[in-house]
Amino acid sequence: MATIKAAILGFGTVGQGIYHILNEKREDLRKKLGVELEVAKILVRDTSKERVPGTRHLLTDSIDDCLSVKGLQVVFEAIVGEEPAYTYLKKAVMNKCHVITANKVMFAKYGLELQELAKQNGVFVGYEATVAGGVPVIKTMKNILLVNDVTRIQGILNGTSNYILTKMRAEGWSFDEALKEAQALGYAEADPYMDISGQDAFKKLMVLSALAFGEQPNWADVKVVGIDGITPEQVKEAKEKGLRYRHVAEVEKLPDGTIFAQVGPMLVSKEHPLYPIDDVFNAVTMETNYIGTLTLIGPGAGMYPTASVMVEDYAEIIGKRAGFVVTI
Amino acid sequence: MATIKAAILGFGTVGQGIYHILNEKREDLRKKLGVELEVAKILVRDTSKERVPGTRHLLTDSIDDCLSVKGLQVVFEAIVGEEPAYTYLKKAVMNKCHVITANKVMFAKYGLELQELAKQNGVFVGYEATVAGGVPVIKTMKNILLVNDVTRIQGILNGTSNYILTKMRAEGWSFDEALKEAQALGYAEADPYMDISGQDAFKKLMVLSALAFGEQPNWADVKVVGIDGITPEQVKEAKEKGLRYRHVAEVEKLPDGTIFAQVGPMLVSKEHPLYPIDDVFNAVTMETNYIGTLTLIGPGAGMYPTASVMVEDYAEIIGKRAGFVVTI
Repeated sequence: MATIKAAILGFGTVGQGIYHILNEKREDLRKKLGVELEVAKILVRDTSKERVPGTRHLLTDSIDDCLSVKGLQVVFEAIVGEEPAYTYLKKAVMNKCHVITANKVMFAKYGLELQELAKQNGVFVGYEATVAGGVPVIKTMKNILLVNDVTRIQGILNGTSNYILTKMRAEGWSFDEALKEAQALGYAEADPYMDISGQDAFKKLMVLSALAFGEQPNWADVKVVGIDGITPEQVKEAKEKGLRYRHVAEVEKLPDGTIFAQVGPMLVSKEHPLYPIDDVFNAVTMETNYIGTLTLIGPGAGMYPTASVMVEDYAEIIGKRAGFVVTI
Repeated sequence: MATIKAAILGFGTVGQGIYHILNEKREDLRKKLGVELEVAKILVRDTSKERVPGTRHLLTDSIDDCLSVKGLQVVFEAIVGEEPAYTYLKKAVMNKCHVITANKVMFAKYGLELQELAKQNGVFVGYEATVAGGVPVIKTMKNILLVNDVTRIQGILNGTSNYILTKMRAEGWSFDEALKEAQALGYAEADPYMDISGQDAFKKLMVLSALAFGEQPNWADVKVVGIDGITPEQVKEAKEKGLRYRHVAEVEKLPDGTIFAQVGPMLVSKEHPLYPIDDVFNAVTMETNYIGTLTLIGPGAGMYPTASVMVEDYAEIIGKRAGFVVTI
């Protein structure tokens, strides 16, 4: 049986999740895909820390060491930030590796270029995990776009913000208490600025804009407001009126062809589709010409949801690459 | 450029929707798929009725006439009922045609056999349209199942029932008024028994069960209750308490491996995910091991939603068949 070799770049929450799932599903994936998958290298900054027992011999701090593995075909990337992630993935693609990324900051900026480069090199880019964690919004939209035009996208795209707003309302926690708990649960980054400022949701929205419309609005024109300005008093007052704060990102193609986007808090009533979306859940609504309005709801963060859609990307790519269709 | 020939079996609401979308998207599909699509035959019972102008020369009342078209590769099926649909699709598959069906009654009973036969003949079966209209629950579940195990499915699967319950509550309409309007809007069948008895939702649930678990429960063991027993007084009383009636179908795999399913009305509060799902909308929730709970919401009936997912099935199959991947 053929063996596919993979590297994992970044071994934090998501990177470890990939490793665990690949191990747990080894037999199953082999049966479904007809190939064996082997994690051959794991790129970390500090090779002296063995985060998962039995992985020390796989650790390296050199991207060239990763990419020089003989027969390497797949690179999973779960690093934070634009660089060096983009440089690494360009190298991987030029090395004829498929890449699967969870890095929204990098992909919002360089996604279209990276996909173009991948096309030239005959490999695929999986990026389901860049938006809405375990919710398969990228695959669903790609599929819809075969026949439908998407005109507008609206969603709760940051699980941490939604978790904090939920706990402030339902438990009466302060912002700081809710944030601390979100960090303890592994939802929020150690530096939570990206989450609570709205920048994380903005980056995900830009990934969706590029997919739905083939372009993004001028970033400087997009008003991005976070949840850090919402006071406990405002949350309490809204609750008494039967309303809830949601942090909503939206992008639409206007009739004149321009792309309009905005990100910020919104008060919704119980008739609004986003009213019941609590905790770390994300929701994405797409308006399309034939289907109408389609909404996807699921966990927007966490080790296993995010890592599992990356392994799905892998299974899909390997199925296509091998020229056969994965059937269940 | 290669031409792909297709037949449409049944030319009611959905069959006509397919024809319209294929015409409207002709250029676009040609560009995306690299092949030209031609509707070569349309199977109807009465060839003297030209339902869409310009189609008279395509009409036939003979399945053999359809399947003898030289170079026929795809059959869209939008007939109602088990037979003759199943016999027709078996013939089509043995004729090496891909088949794409919207027929939940046939597929609930014969779906697994038809897929097995298709596999033997090297062709594909698209059945996204059999469940939840325009909501891509089949593709999403297939994709998830590459890595996740689904343990439980719960959903509003009949748009007509949900529409009637919504209008009884929100507009104070009687059951009969709401049903008449649902029929006028093309949601309900002329014979609404399947919809309001819960049988339609049951059939869709059985399709989902076969996909998620590879098997169905014994049909005779499943309690199926429709909405026809719900009185206007009950709806009014629930509304006064802040509750809503939803018609819910659910299936789960119990720890001992048996499949348990039930279909019937349920009272939900505003905290329940199905509370805001009004009108003809459908919703499907899947519980999985890695991702957690995933919910899809969208229009469960109507010409264009249902027909458009069938054309998506076609685009996906042709992309795979041709050995290349459709990229957007």
